[in-house]
Amino acid sequence: MQEVYIIKIGGNVIDDAGATRRFLADFAALPGKKILVHGGGKVATQIAAKLGIETQMIDGRRITDRPMLEVVTMVYGGLVNKNLVAQLQSFNCPALGLTGADAGSIIAKKREVGVIDYGFAGDIVKVNAEQIAAFLGQDLVPVFAPLTCDPQGQLLNTNADTLASAIAVALAGQFAATLVYCFEKKGVLSDPANDDSVIHHINTATYTQLKADGVVSQGMIPKLDNAFAALNQGVRQVTICRADEFKSIADAATQSGTQLTLA
Amino acid sequence: MQEVYIIKIGGNVIDDAGATRRFLADFAALPGKKILVHGGGKVATQIAAKLGIETQMIDGRRITDRPMLEVVTMVYGGLVNKNLVAQLQSFNCPALGLTGADAGSIIAKKREVGVIDYGFAGDIVKVNAEQIAAFLGQDLVPVFAPLTCDPQGQLLNTNADTLASAIAVALAGQFAATLVYCFEKKGVLSDPANDDSVIHHINTATYTQLKADGVVSQGMIPKLDNAFAALNQGVRQVTICRADEFKSIADAATQSGTQLTLA
Repeated sequence: MQEVYIIKIGGNVIDDAGATRRFLADFAALPGKKILVHGGGKVATQIAAKLGIETQMIDGRRITDRPMLEVVTMVYGGLVNKNLVAQLQSFNCPALGLTGADAGSIIAKKREVGVIDYGFAGDIVKVNAEQIAAFLGQDLVPVFAPLTCDPQGQLLNTNADTLASAIAVALAGQFAATLVYCFEKKGVLSDPANDDSVIHHINTATYTQLKADGVVSQGMIPKLDNAFAALNQGVRQVTICRADEFKSIADAATQSGTQLTLA
Repeated sequence: MQEVYIIKIGGNVIDDAGATRRFLADFAALPGKKILVHGGGKVATQIAAKLGIETQMIDGRRITDRPMLEVVTMVYGGLVNKNLVAQLQSFNCPALGLTGADAGSIIAKKREVGVIDYGFAGDIVKVNAEQIAAFLGQDLVPVFAPLTCDPQGQLLNTNADTLASAIAVALAGQFAATLVYCFEKKGVLSDPANDDSVIHHINTATYTQLKADGVVSQGMIPKLDNAFAALNQGVRQVTICRADEFKSIADAATQSGTQLTLA
């Protein structure tokens, strides 16, 4: 089965032009099929503020009213996405910028209003794996902004971690899919105060033990739960690492970060 | 030879949500291979103003300094492009939003500084017709924002009329290409004061005569010169019409607007 890497980068990379460029050089050099999924970074909040639009976050999630939807459509779909694509072209990486709306690649629905009204937030209904595989088959490198749309053409703000995971799961039927979350730490740490205390491998059994022992920090649990959910749906491996150590992910001998697998 | 339509819409459509929606319904209903190229509209100027960035236009062309490049990247590549794509999806039209940077589809270079420094304005060097034809072959409908990039990954603001014409010329080798400019008039008028005085057909010979007689208004001449340049490079037909009369372009019996052909 052919391999595919789905790599997610967040604000800590995007907000730093130098870090972005170094990451993109490494990403471009990764051989084989690959997909980049990017978050938004601080620039959406900064531009919203300049436009007089207040940013409201609840539990780290952005409340997306109509003016904020325009901002994230501009910033994620335009400014961030096209700058990443253009830089990747300079590294001879045939990047293709996408939102879920493009080529109907991801269908979503507006999140139902519960205790919190997230506004124009999208929950993924279906990933068009066939279309994404067709782009990969053309040797293109999809670069996804965290935006989707519903069948009525309503654009929706969508969590980038979730989007990356949904793409990996959807492709798992046709590819040996590795999902990589680049974040600010070197991996899952056994001691949050010690950045070098990376746990190199976690499987279902050791994860249960780590949670029972209280070793995994509270903030990591949703990320890891999502990672294991992806593994349970056919993704071969999930890697959590720092963007500047991402280069080694395809090389088992020098792999850094934390590797998550079922067994 | 298979037909392809390359349709350009400008600000007069984009700035009016109702006109945009009506146009997109007609565009979605057009059978066969097609490409949409959109301009920017007033929203870039409005958002620039809100961000405290002054818009400077010379001869109808935007001076694109670095802050303005960020604005047009956001607005053309994000806000306008993704809203058009999402609406087309709702009409079951498999739209794929692109800039020239995406999939290396259009290579440009920064315009050399002459009497006027246009800033980050791009002149097209090469259209990757093979890649665009590959998207058409997947039954996708490319929707181009007027942005390109150079081989060093520098994004560049590019005139949408020129971009549409360059795509039509590049595809003319493989397709019977019709280039359609939707604008605010019903076509080329013999009497600028009479909106119904549309000249239905112009060829090379009659164009020379119309210019000699001073019938064609000064403002139309660059557009028509560009149109005949495209025809001389293999484009089969150029149509100039109003966006709300665009529906009839594929039907010779009811064609509205002005048809330009070589002979």
